[in-house]
Amino acid sequence: MVKEGMKNVVALESKISRIDGKKGELEYRGYSIHDLAKHSSYEETAYLLWHGRLPKENELEEFSADLAGRRRIPPEVIGPLTSLPDITHPMVILRTAISYCGSLDENLHEINPEENLCKSKEILAMIPTIIAYAARLREGKSLVHPRRELGHAANFLWMLKGSEPDPIEVEALDTDLILHAEHTLNASTYSSRIAASTLSDMYAGIVSATGTLMGPLHGGASQAVIEMLKEIKEGDLSAEEWIENKLDEGEHIPGFGHRVYKTKDPRAIELEKIAKRLDEKEGNDWTSLSNKIEKIVDDKLGLNSNVDFYAATVYVNLEIPDDFFIPIFAMGRIAGWTTHMMEQYKENKLIRPLQKYVGETEKEYIPLEER
Amino acid sequence: MVKEGMKNVVALESKISRIDGKKGELEYRGYSIHDLAKHSSYEETAYLLWHGRLPKENELEEFSADLAGRRRIPPEVIGPLTSLPDITHPMVILRTAISYCGSLDENLHEINPEENLCKSKEILAMIPTIIAYAARLREGKSLVHPRRELGHAANFLWMLKGSEPDPIEVEALDTDLILHAEHTLNASTYSSRIAASTLSDMYAGIVSATGTLMGPLHGGASQAVIEMLKEIKEGDLSAEEWIENKLDEGEHIPGFGHRVYKTKDPRAIELEKIAKRLDEKEGNDWTSLSNKIEKIVDDKLGLNSNVDFYAATVYVNLEIPDDFFIPIFAMGRIAGWTTHMMEQYKENKLIRPLQKYVGETEKEYIPLEER
Ligand SMILES: CC(C)(COP(=O)(O)OP(=O)(O)OC[C@H]1O[C@@H](n2cnc3c(N)ncnc32)[C@H](O)[C@@H]1OP(=O)(O)O)[C@@H](O)C(=O)NCCC(=O)NCCS
Ligand SMILES: CC(C)(COP(=O)(O)OP(=O)(O)OC[C@H]1O[C@@H](n2cnc3c(N)ncnc32)[C@H](O)[C@@H]1OP(=O)(O)O)[C@@H](O)C(=O)NCCC(=O)NCCS
Repeated sequence: MVKEGMKNVVALESKISRIDGKKGELEYRGYSIHDLAKHSSYEETAYLLWHGRLPKENELEEFSADLAGRRRIPPEVIGPLTSLPDITHPMVILRTAISYCGSLDENLHEINPEENLCKSKEILAMIPTIIAYAARLREGKSLVHPRRELGHAANFLWMLKGSEPDPIEVEALDTDLILHAEHTLNASTYSSRIAASTLSDMYAGIVSATGTLMGPLHGGASQAVIEMLKEIKEGDLSAEEWIENKLDEGEHIPGFGHRVYKTKDPRAIELEKIAKRLDEKEGNDWTSLSNKIEKIVDDKLGLNSNVDFYAATVYVNLEIPDDFFIPIFAMGRIAGWTTHMMEQYKENKLIRPLQKYVGETEKEYIPLEER
Repeated sequence: MVKEGMKNVVALESKISRIDGKKGELEYRGYSIHDLAKHSSYEETAYLLWHGRLPKENELEEFSADLAGRRRIPPEVIGPLTSLPDITHPMVILRTAISYCGSLDENLHEINPEENLCKSKEILAMIPTIIAYAARLREGKSLVHPRRELGHAANFLWMLKGSEPDPIEVEALDTDLILHAEHTLNASTYSSRIAASTLSDMYAGIVSATGTLMGPLHGGASQAVIEMLKEIKEGDLSAEEWIENKLDEGEHIPGFGHRVYKTKDPRAIELEKIAKRLDEKEGNDWTSLSNKIEKIVDDKLGLNSNVDFYAATVYVNLEIPDDFFIPIFAMGRIAGWTTHMMEQYKENKLIRPLQKYVGETEKEYIPLEER
């Protein structure tokens, strides 16, 4: 009767994306992610998710320009960012900054299709700026402001690195963001819909989702993967020994296993290709180490790699700091979170489950003096 | 097959509180809330929820002193609070400030029973300070700092008003906080558990819950209730006409109806008593107007009042600004949110439901130029 972690419980109906966990398929609005990874851009994918259809040429142009015009973050938000201690995880910075941006939105509490879309654009456009600023502030570098003529992925790399972005890197990041854009009712997305279901504001839901994504059983795994890869590469243990140790300690191997997929995650297939291309460009060999680990985990546990596994190899090649891997996940997933919130608002029903009570009952209150 | 808003779906097992929606009963850890409202204090109730049993005299003393010593908020958090526009809703301030406090916690990512309890105390102790500071800053008043020798409720009224709190008001608020402390798997609590289920940090869950509580279908109703009472009191429409208008517009009457209770909410019974006592003290007649509305809604819709209905009459008598009603709800509920997160961490299973896909599938990707 009790649904453990909601395993196999259908929580609601949705028209946004479809996973076939047995076949290893993922579609956004009916389009295979393999097609989108090959042909689409992140902007086009966001348009597809929000509007339910692919844009025409002029629509995409207008839409991209609209997003590009919304990248600056309110100046009030920068002060608090600069006063955070270096140890603050960038995901915590991101969640705080998004919440702060919301507090400056004059129409925060208006919920209607037009406003929701406007807020979705604002948040999607501002997230890369917050992330890039946080990275540069921590390194004591001057802020690099957004440039309108650059696409979403290119502009992020520009703001992060302060140099003209390399087209191969831009394409890699763009495809990575597409692959992270949406994934049905994962924990963070579900939490954003719960906020929407009380008719709270869009920022509330995105802040919820950002905090929830960070956990190591969810988006946090991407950071844990790079830490694993580096420990194996630089340490004394072989990959096999490292994995055995971890399992002996009762821990999970990050980047493996999934609630829904029983096959290799289709996103991992695409990300592996990108990782290999970047490895070649950079003269690295992260992919072969990853392949090796994948084989060991498959042999030992029969588990497949998930989205976070090869994403780590992509990000390390893009020279993104390890603890900025999860923020990049958020930068992609914001398209899905906002789409789900908009779907929830449209035909809302308060999300409020029951529990099974298994504790004591009818206890007598004994006055303090007599305890 | 699809669970509409998770209605009647048992999401997990819990030992924290029990609702009997048919009999109108609510217990925390086995103790009736009627007993707790009569005999307990908010500090004792928080202890009960966290530890699963009532404290002995010396334990309660030590515990209360521990909480009282944690009321100051990091000075870095005050700056951003002062720079927010006046229109910012205090719940948005609260959620941002809690997130910000988390970003300053050096042990943020440590999850173990001792750390979780420590963070729970920190957050529970700091929330009243954040709320009181936000209220005074908006009114251009100087900040009034916490005083250790005052109890939780008394200290809040002191910080809010800057004068010695009236014992009757202290008792009223204290009981109100007890009544708001915990309520099984409501939307905000559920969202805090989802964050915990990914093994994200406690602040992430509390920030989620704070954002989710704000929605008018959840804690936001308390503010909507006072707006309704004032409109009826000050406007030209009779209570009956006001309600009819609202229903004609297809809207819900705030403070009525509940997913679980099919009777009057047992908390509303207790809050009505407090409201009446405060009305008498202040020479107000909010309760009789509320009683009238209750009767009309019962006659028309057969719906009972919920926790938010008489809470509004309590807060207006305590001279709490209308938009600070929801923060007071959060100030009480923090005990329950933290208890649920700790229960989730203890025997964790990722909360990740399925969805039923009802959209299009297998669509062919058409190149941009050909659309
Ligand atoms: C994603 C994840 C939380 C799914 O969890 P779930 O659906 O609740 O499944 P479970 O954790 O119950 O896993 C089922 C079994 O596989 C094992 N397992 C799952 N993932 C594992 C992993 N990464 N390493 C080792 N064992 C794993 C579990 O121990 C469990 O075995 P048991 O039944 O003998 O206890 C889980 O696979 C995991 O922790 N993965 C690592 C973190 C990660 O990469 N997360 C990102 C997902 S995109
Ligand atoms: C709390 C609440 C969201 C519960 O919702 P729910 O379990 O999803 O129940 P529903 O909204 O489907 O309500 C069932 C029926 O009662 C009606 N109803 C419920 N609460 C109502 C209210 N406050 N005013 C008018 N009608 C109401 C609904 O319209 C619905 O009627 P229908 O079946 O003819 O459409 C709902 O009662 C509500 O909106 N109340 C007002 C807000 C409030 O006080 N929230 C605080 C709760 S502590």
